[in-house]
Amino acid sequence: MSEQLKQDALDYHALPTPGKISVELTTPAATQHDLALAYSPGVAAPCREIAADQDAAYRYTGKGNLVAVISNGTAVLGLGNLGALASKPVMEGKALLFKRFAGINSIDIEVETEDADEFIATVERIASTFGGINLEDIKAPECFEIEAALIERCDIPVFHDDQHGTAIVTAAGLVNALEIQGKRIEDAVVTCLGAGAAAIACMRLLVSLGARRENIYMLDRRGVIFQGREGVNTYKQEFANDTDKRSLADAINGADVFIGLSGADLLSQEMLLSMADRPVVFACSNPDPEIKPELALATRDDLIIATGRSDYPNQVNNVLGFPFIFRGALDVRASAINEEMKVAAVRALCELTREPVEPEVLVACNVESLAFGRDYIIPKPMDSRLLGRLAPAVARAAVESGVARVALPEGYAPTL
Amino acid sequence: MSEQLKQDALDYHALPTPGKISVELTTPAATQHDLALAYSPGVAAPCREIAADQDAAYRYTGKGNLVAVISNGTAVLGLGNLGALASKPVMEGKALLFKRFAGINSIDIEVETEDADEFIATVERIASTFGGINLEDIKAPECFEIEAALIERCDIPVFHDDQHGTAIVTAAGLVNALEIQGKRIEDAVVTCLGAGAAAIACMRLLVSLGARRENIYMLDRRGVIFQGREGVNTYKQEFANDTDKRSLADAINGADVFIGLSGADLLSQEMLLSMADRPVVFACSNPDPEIKPELALATRDDLIIATGRSDYPNQVNNVLGFPFIFRGALDVRASAINEEMKVAAVRALCELTREPVEPEVLVACNVESLAFGRDYIIPKPMDSRLLGRLAPAVARAAVESGVARVALPEGYAPTL
Repeated sequence: MSEQLKQDALDYHALPTPGKISVELTTPAATQHDLALAYSPGVAAPCREIAADQDAAYRYTGKGNLVAVISNGTAVLGLGNLGALASKPVMEGKALLFKRFAGINSIDIEVETEDADEFIATVERIASTFGGINLEDIKAPECFEIEAALIERCDIPVFHDDQHGTAIVTAAGLVNALEIQGKRIEDAVVTCLGAGAAAIACMRLLVSLGARRENIYMLDRRGVIFQGREGVNTYKQEFANDTDKRSLADAINGADVFIGLSGADLLSQEMLLSMADRPVVFACSNPDPEIKPELALATRDDLIIATGRSDYPNQVNNVLGFPFIFRGALDVRASAINEEMKVAAVRALCELTREPVEPEVLVACNVESLAFGRDYIIPKPMDSRLLGRLAPAVARAAVESGVARVALPEGYAPTL
Repeated sequence: MSEQLKQDALDYHALPTPGKISVELTTPAATQHDLALAYSPGVAAPCREIAADQDAAYRYTGKGNLVAVISNGTAVLGLGNLGALASKPVMEGKALLFKRFAGINSIDIEVETEDADEFIATVERIASTFGGINLEDIKAPECFEIEAALIERCDIPVFHDDQHGTAIVTAAGLVNALEIQGKRIEDAVVTCLGAGAAAIACMRLLVSLGARRENIYMLDRRGVIFQGREGVNTYKQEFANDTDKRSLADAINGADVFIGLSGADLLSQEMLLSMADRPVVFACSNPDPEIKPELALATRDDLIIATGRSDYPNQVNNVLGFPFIFRGALDVRASAINEEMKVAAVRALCELTREPVEPEVLVACNVESLAFGRDYIIPKPMDSRLLGRLAPAVARAAVESGVARVALPEGYAPTL
C-alpha cells in the first residue's frame, strides 16, 4: 500500500468520527408520548406478541433486516491472525457495504477466541438477535467446522463470505470466460493454487456447476494434493487427485483454467505458456496478483485474465455477491443460503454481464463502455442493476428449494 | 395497558419499518475510491494500527461510542421471563434512548441462555466489540453474579441498569425529598418493599450516601428479611436486619421512607398513616404503583410521593441516568462505572432539580413551571440540560477516582 493510500485510509477511518457506521432512530422520539410507545409502558405490547409467537419479531423488531458480521480475526484480509479487535475495521467496512449496496442494517461482532467450539457456542447464543450471520476472516480449517455447526444450529442464514462469496463471484466470471473462450466447464482442466477456505469453496461450487472433480488439481504450499499424500486435512482431501503430478509446473501444463488464491507472482511466464490454448487465469491474490495482467497479456494474447484489483478489468470482488444474496435471503426469511441460491446468484451475475448497459450505469461505473467480452466477464461493483437482478434470483431459488419461510413479495423488486 | 396504547405501540414498532433503529454510514461510500478506503485495500492500514496498539481501536473504529444493550430476557419489564427474543423490543428501545438522549450508538444483543456461566462467557468473548455494556432485564440473583464477573473480566464499563440506573435516580429523588421534608438520610428509617436487583442496588447506594444499614428494613414475598431467617440468598442477606419486625405493617410503622419496587396496591392507607411525620413514599411499581398518588395524598397531606409514571409528578425514570452516565464514562474511556461515578450522578441530578429553569426547558417538558418542592424532586426526562450536567460530573468522578484512561477533554461540554 502506498504511503498516500495508507494515510488517506487512516484519515477516512478517524474522521469525522471514529469508524464508519452509526446507529440511528427510525421512529419518532421527540415527545414523552413517543417514548411511551418506544419504551415503557407501550413496549410491553410487542414483547408479549413475540413471547406468544417468535415470528412476531420480524414484525416488531429490526431482526429481519439485520445481519451480523462476525469474526475472530484469525485470517484478516491477507494479513493473517491479527486478533479479534484488529479485525474491527474490516467488519465495520463489511457492515457499511451491506447498507450501501443492499439497504441491510449490519453490525460487527468481534469474538475473542481462537477455539472453534467456544466461537460456535458464542455465536449460537446471540444468533436470535439477527436475521442473518456473515462469518468473516476466520482461518481454515476451523472456518469449515464453525460454519457447518452454525448452519446446523441456527434457523437463520449463516454464510462464510470468504468461502461462498468468493466462490460465487469467481464462478460467475469463470463461466463467462469459458464461454468466450469456446470451452465447456465439463471439459475444463482446472489448476487451483491455494487450498484455503476460498479455494475449497470455489472448487466445490465449480463442481456444482458441472466441472469434473478429476479435472481439478488443487495445490497447497506442499504442492499438488494427490490421493495418498499424507497429512492432508478432510477438507483438502475432498480434492485429492489420483495423479502423479506434484508441482505447480506439472499441474498447470495443459490446464484450461488457473485459479490463484495464493500469493504474489507465483505464476511464471513459462507456466502460463504451458497452459492449453485460450486459457483463463484468475490471479486473485490481493493486493499483488499471482501474475501481473500486463505481463500475462504480453506473454500470450489468447488469454482472459481476472484479478482482485479495481485498477484492472475483470475485478473479482465479493461485493458483487454478499449484499444481494443476503437481501434475497432476508426478504423471503430463508432459513439458510443453500447451493441452489448460490448457483442462482452465479447465473444472475453471468446474465447481467451480457445485458445491454444503460448510460447511467456507465457513468456510475466510470467507464465508457461495457461490452461482454474478454475485458468484461463480470459486472462492475458500482452497477446499480445488481440489487434488482441478484436478490430476486436468490429469493426465487430459496422459495423453489424450500428454505423460504414467507412467499416472494408480490412484484418483488428491491431498490435502495 | 389500554387497548388504544397497545395498538398504538404495535403500530409504532411495525411502521415505517419493523423496529426502531437502523445502521447508517458516517463516511462517504459513493465512489470506487471511497470503497478502497472503507474496505480493501485501504482498511488494512487501521487494522495494522490496532494490531500494534489495541487502543487505536478508539481512533479508527466506532468502539468508543458504541454500547451494547444485552439481555437474556429472564426479567423483561414487569412481565417476567419472556425469553431472549421477546425482550428485543425493550433492548432496541434502550438503544433508541441511548442515541436520543446522549448521542451514543447502541445495539441490542439477545443471549439465548438462562445459565449464568454461559451468559458470562458469551458476553466476555464479544465485549471488545464495544465501548461499554448495559446489562438489562436479567433476573435476580443471577444478575449480581453476572455483573460482578463481567466487571472483573472486561476492561470496559459493565452496568446493570435495572440495578444502578434505578438506584441512582431513586436516590437522587430521595435525597431531595428528605431535604424538603427536613430530614437527614443518616437518620431516616427506610422500608424497602421488594428485594430484587433494583431494591438491593438502591439500598446499597443509599448506604453509600449515608443511610444506616440498621435503619433499613427490606421485605421480600415472605416478609421482613431479618437476621437468622432461613433461605435468604447472599445478596438479600446483606440487608438482613437484627429486628423482630416481620410484616410490612410492622416495618412501615414509624418509617420515614417507603420504597416500593414490588407490585400494585401493596401499600394500604392504614400503613401510610402509620408512617412517621412528613414521610417520603416512592411507589415505583409499574405500571400500577404500590399506592395511587391521589389516594396517598388524600390519606395524608404531609407526604411526598414519587412513582414510575409519567402522568404524575416526580417520575422515577432510568432515562434520567444511564445515557448520561455512559456518555461521561465513554468520553474519558473509563474502565468501569464505579461508586464514585454513581454518587456523582446522584449529586448532579439533585443539583439540577434546584436550578432555575429556562423557558425552553419548560416547553420541552410540556409544563408551566418547575419549582423545587414536593411536586418536583427530580428532573424531567425531556430536560435538555441533563446531558451537559450529568456527563461531565460522571466523567470528572471517573478521572478523580482513577478509572479514566484519557483526560477530560478541554472544555468538555457534551451536546447532541
